[in-house]
Amino acid sequence: MIRFDTDYTEGAHKQILERLIETNDEQLPGYGTDHYSNTAKAYIRNLCGNEVDVHFMMGGTQANMTIISSALRTHQGVISPDTGHIAADETGAIESTGHKVLQVANENGKLSAGQVNEYVEDHWNSIEREHMSQPKMVYISQPTESGTLYSKAELDELRAVCDTHHLYLMVDGARLGYALASEKNDVGLEDLANLCDVFYIGGTKIGALFGEAVVIKHENLKTDFRYIIKQKGGMLAKGRLLGIQFKVLFENDLYLEISKHALEMSKRLTEAFEDQDIEMAYPSQTNQLFPVLTTHQMKQLSSKYAFQPWEPVDSDRTAVRFCTSWSTDIQDVDALIDDLAKLQKGNAGS
Amino acid sequence: MIRFDTDYTEGAHKQILERLIETNDEQLPGYGTDHYSNTAKAYIRNLCGNEVDVHFMMGGTQANMTIISSALRTHQGVISPDTGHIAADETGAIESTGHKVLQVANENGKLSAGQVNEYVEDHWNSIEREHMSQPKMVYISQPTESGTLYSKAELDELRAVCDTHHLYLMVDGARLGYALASEKNDVGLEDLANLCDVFYIGGTKIGALFGEAVVIKHENLKTDFRYIIKQKGGMLAKGRLLGIQFKVLFENDLYLEISKHALEMSKRLTEAFEDQDIEMAYPSQTNQLFPVLTTHQMKQLSSKYAFQPWEPVDSDRTAVRFCTSWSTDIQDVDALIDDLAKLQKGNAGS
Amino acid sequence: MIRFDTDYTEGAHKQILERLIETNDEQLPGYGTDHYSNTAKAYIRNLCGNEVDVHFMMGGTQANMTIISSALRTHQGVISPDTGHIAADETGAIESTGHKVLQVANENGKLSAGQVNEYVEDHWNSIEREHMSQPKMVYISQPTESGTLYSKAELDELRAVCDTHHLYLMVDGARLGYALASEKNDVGLEDLANLCDVFYIGGTKIGALFGEAVVIKHENLKTDFRYIIKQKGGMLAKGRLLGIQFKVLFENDLYLEISKHALEMSKRLTEAFEDQDIEMAYPSQTNQLFPVLTTHQMKQLSSKYAFQPWEPVDSDRTAVRFCTSWSTDIQDVDALIDDLAKLQKGNAGS
Amino acid sequence: MIRFDTDYTEGAHKQILERLIETNDEQLPGYGTDHYSNTAKAYIRNLCGNEVDVHFMMGGTQANMTIISSALRTHQGVISPDTGHIAADETGAIESTGHKVLQVANENGKLSAGQVNEYVEDHWNSIEREHMSQPKMVYISQPTESGTLYSKAELDELRAVCDTHHLYLMVDGARLGYALASEKNDVGLEDLANLCDVFYIGGTKIGALFGEAVVIKHENLKTDFRYIIKQKGGMLAKGRLLGIQFKVLFENDLYLEISKHALEMSKRLTEAFEDQDIEMAYPSQTNQLFPVLTTHQMKQLSSKYAFQPWEPVDSDRTAVRFCTSWSTDIQDVDALIDDLAKLQKGNAGS
Repeated sequence: MIRFDTDYTEGAHKQILERLIETNDEQLPGYGTDHYSNTAKAYIRNLCGNEVDVHFMMGGTQANMTIISSALRTHQGVISPDTGHIAADETGAIESTGHKVLQVANENGKLSAGQVNEYVEDHWNSIEREHMSQPKMVYISQPTESGTLYSKAELDELRAVCDTHHLYLMVDGARLGYALASEKNDVGLEDLANLCDVFYIGGTKIGALFGEAVVIKHENLKTDFRYIIKQKGGMLAKGRLLGIQFKVLFENDLYLEISKHALEMSKRLTEAFEDQDIEMAYPSQTNQLFPVLTTHQMKQLSSKYAFQPWEPVDSDRTAVRFCTSWSTDIQDVDALIDDLAKLQKGNAGS
Repeated sequence: MIRFDTDYTEGAHKQILERLIETNDEQLPGYGTDHYSNTAKAYIRNLCGNEVDVHFMMGGTQANMTIISSALRTHQGVISPDTGHIAADETGAIESTGHKVLQVANENGKLSAGQVNEYVEDHWNSIEREHMSQPKMVYISQPTESGTLYSKAELDELRAVCDTHHLYLMVDGARLGYALASEKNDVGLEDLANLCDVFYIGGTKIGALFGEAVVIKHENLKTDFRYIIKQKGGMLAKGRLLGIQFKVLFENDLYLEISKHALEMSKRLTEAFEDQDIEMAYPSQTNQLFPVLTTHQMKQLSSKYAFQPWEPVDSDRTAVRFCTSWSTDIQDVDALIDDLAKLQKGNAGS
Repeated sequence: MIRFDTDYTEGAHKQILERLIETNDEQLPGYGTDHYSNTAKAYIRNLCGNEVDVHFMMGGTQANMTIISSALRTHQGVISPDTGHIAADETGAIESTGHKVLQVANENGKLSAGQVNEYVEDHWNSIEREHMSQPKMVYISQPTESGTLYSKAELDELRAVCDTHHLYLMVDGARLGYALASEKNDVGLEDLANLCDVFYIGGTKIGALFGEAVVIKHENLKTDFRYIIKQKGGMLAKGRLLGIQFKVLFENDLYLEISKHALEMSKRLTEAFEDQDIEMAYPSQTNQLFPVLTTHQMKQLSSKYAFQPWEPVDSDRTAVRFCTSWSTDIQDVDALIDDLAKLQKGNAGS
Repeated sequence: MIRFDTDYTEGAHKQILERLIETNDEQLPGYGTDHYSNTAKAYIRNLCGNEVDVHFMMGGTQANMTIISSALRTHQGVISPDTGHIAADETGAIESTGHKVLQVANENGKLSAGQVNEYVEDHWNSIEREHMSQPKMVYISQPTESGTLYSKAELDELRAVCDTHHLYLMVDGARLGYALASEKNDVGLEDLANLCDVFYIGGTKIGALFGEAVVIKHENLKTDFRYIIKQKGGMLAKGRLLGIQFKVLFENDLYLEISKHALEMSKRLTEAFEDQDIEMAYPSQTNQLFPVLTTHQMKQLSSKYAFQPWEPVDSDRTAVRFCTSWSTDIQDVDALIDDLAKLQKGNAGS
């Protein structure tokens, strides 16, 4: 079985493993107070070019629930596209901290400034507003759960709306490297640090064993963040593990370099789908591709490749997800490309 | 200003006030352990004809959050139509207890057994189901927030789906009297007790100063319910006040009798709207009417009558809510009917 | 049975009932936006002599959980004496909103500035402080759950400690009238408004059917408080009921007047216990008295009087609670005094 | 600096690192559904000799909050010694899930069956019990946070009390290996599986990079546990990392073997403290030692050794914590022993 179902099917980049081994016997203080963590944080602060705080956490759901419950008062909610990870994929983790996820219909996985503005103005214009969760934060993902990208212009507009309405802007960057490495992207790390109140840089899906680097810009959100990491179960005893991994990823551009590999692989695969006239459910902008396959095509491919059914399109067709990643083997991609060609030829011949 | 905006614009039925005065000096134990509460509970149990527990609470939001947080484990959510009170009007009270409200698109304020079945089957068929809130309860209102009614057949179907999928079925009866008194209703109190795991009988909007009678049938939900009332801030020190009010409402059919008055008034008003060819946004089945008015009509009427804008219909028209109640004065209704006639005539003449 | 077990054994003061009847048919808007509520709030603001916000709530537990969850971020806790109502008597209501009650050993029901200072300094001096709930609020009751009073000097000291450590100071005044009316009290309403960030004035135990008037001074706590009342289930549909009751209590000093009656009754009773050489577990400063009775005495008295066992003192003796209230009948007190005298004489004779 | 301050100062056992490297390129499904996780779970189930479920989690606080919030209804609390990790060291993580930690005074870090019985009987005997959190679970640690051990007899008694009162019994085994390996221990893994409803086997402090193996015996607690892991942020994308680590620890007794090393080191160190007549604050039964040092001794040792101040004993003396671990170097221990001897000799000479 060749796996394209997710982007976390292998372990870690070998440089990370090597560094874990080299440093293994070093005695270090716990909870992220070690020198590796400090150095890694400094690298990231530098790249962000802002007065930001950096914290390392173990996973995305944990980061989301910690950040959001840190930012909101009890009666406040967070606006999210209905496809947002916090809305659709986290077993109500945000609600379990007491806050409502205020879902807005996505377009290609995205939320527009206009939608946010309308939602928030409707709230404040309502005489019954005290009977509704108060919107206080906007949550988006870059790239989105549909593999698409916000442009710099779109983020500027979202920032403006957030400023107008005193909303925090948060970007879930679980796959941020795959945005940064995309030819279609015009939003850099420093842009994110300029525009967001808080965002995170995903490691789990990009070369690390696990880990997300949370970058906090807004002073309100900086205060006492470590208490809340601990309270939500996210403070790793051996915090060094996160520090070492992010140090390796950011000391020599490894993060961007391995992200680029994933994007080259997804581009190669996108072209193959196009060559076979297979439609895409969403624009292919990063490492997640959503070809629309027939039941026959799915059956043929699934004997050899793992991919994920995403959503039904019509009675015979389903959008499915193929992910490339930092660890994708070009031979696996080419095998798939060959099989796609054969599959289509077979269909044509039949 | 004559108020039709809600059904809680006056105090209480005079029999209730009289009884509060008569019993005022009696020394009684607190927290609902007094003999008035016990008697009132017995009346309600009798009417329900089942082995039910009865508890009195102060308001609807309080009842909803207490019942739902009592029933669910931390990872479970409650299915509700998107117009359900818990979804739209309670400032995230359910989420504040840690549980997600799983919204389904309403039709005329209602949820169908088919919708519930599809939602729940989709959940259990998903290989990613552990990443989503688990549906464990169905919340509906009788009558709904749109003034409509579930038929006995519809409730039977919902019960069957709940049985199939091990879901609790809960009915919010904040306006239950106005359902019971409707000519269009075929669901009695005993039917509710047969079909629901828990429901409540609203007093606040039907003759009482305040108060809802929670009726619990499922054994799981009976256990320790008073602890949870207390924890959620709903245990009234002078519980007698609830006991006395519900005793008055249920010792001689007063509850049904005053509900019927509201329905007569709403029928009279419905006919007037029909006479003036004013369309209704929802079928008029109980005490809440939703005529679609033009901006001009709204402006004319609002100088003399209070009513509530509900939702825009098109650029010039808005569905608004008029409520009758146990306390509606027929002279007020007739004044409104006259003014409607004049208004339409004026329009015709213009 | 003559009840001295609590101070909420009767209904309401007759002036309140009269006013509820007089205003019953008036059509008013809901949720506390009516003119009675506004007038009552103005009276209380005037008496407090500060730029305070006033909100009416239905009960003490509800007020406590709403205020505290409004004030704290997720990782923060509230310091309380271990006998504080939030620590001992509310089924974990504060914890149910996610916050830890940080218990400190009481002395006569009270907490000293020194204890608070020590607790908070220990926290901030600990290198492991991020592994503990951060103290951010101090909760005390005036009078305390043991019937005792904080002096003005003690409150000044607590305020100073709270200023030093950026803590909110909250006073639970569920029985505040019985403090204000005490000869032993030197803390007025205006002092509380000067010294506290938030406090409330109890109506349930002092003349009202139910109700607490929350007085908020700190700007942080004023913001959006009505949202949180609604979210926690505390927004009464017919808010007029609270407005009318507090208007009656505060338009002509009725609140203080009826509180004084309770204090006269408790003084009379205190003297009787002293005459019979019955020791008190706590100083008798307000309407709650805690005589230490033998098992024999308890048995003799309990056939005619209701009182509450409080805590065992030794193998044969128990501190019990007798409460007087605004509604205590002097004949009931004198009957008890007589019976106490007989009881002691009987013992002496035996 | 030679670190004895905690038992998580190094990375992982080299066999674990080797296995992570060997398996790194293998493509595996996520979230703990891989074959390594399955095998590791089978090993642990075998050792437990019961029909248990096994789940791997990333850390202790996460395990505690997930287990406890899974087990309790909203009004229920968990009894813990006041030194229990959930009571003292987790920033109110349990309270953040809505549940009160019911603290009982510890003796040498432990809770007795008698104490639990008294607490629970007091609850059920109280007429005011509905105003208190209902005790439903007992949380203890083996070894305790003070390094001490429950005997088999003590656990039998606790189990019996839990049976009597329908309480869940939970054991936090963050350092369980150091209990199992102790000469003073008579409680095996199978005993724990017989006696507990749920417990966990700590990896973070015993050879793993991170990870705790939760063992669930009670059917109620088994149901839907993976949902709750996900909701609380504890579901590791690359679950293989936990599976591989626990497979290494349990396929050949490595876990016990390396725990024994820690115990040999602590025994050696205990004898050295005894030789120098240094008193211990708690009995030395596992890998945590609590010598009582003078300020002078602390100052002298702290230039070369890291250890943790635990609690003041008197004006000049402090109990401090020295931990040995699976990774403790005997040369470091011997250096400390030498320095202790010199220090005492120096004192004697002065």
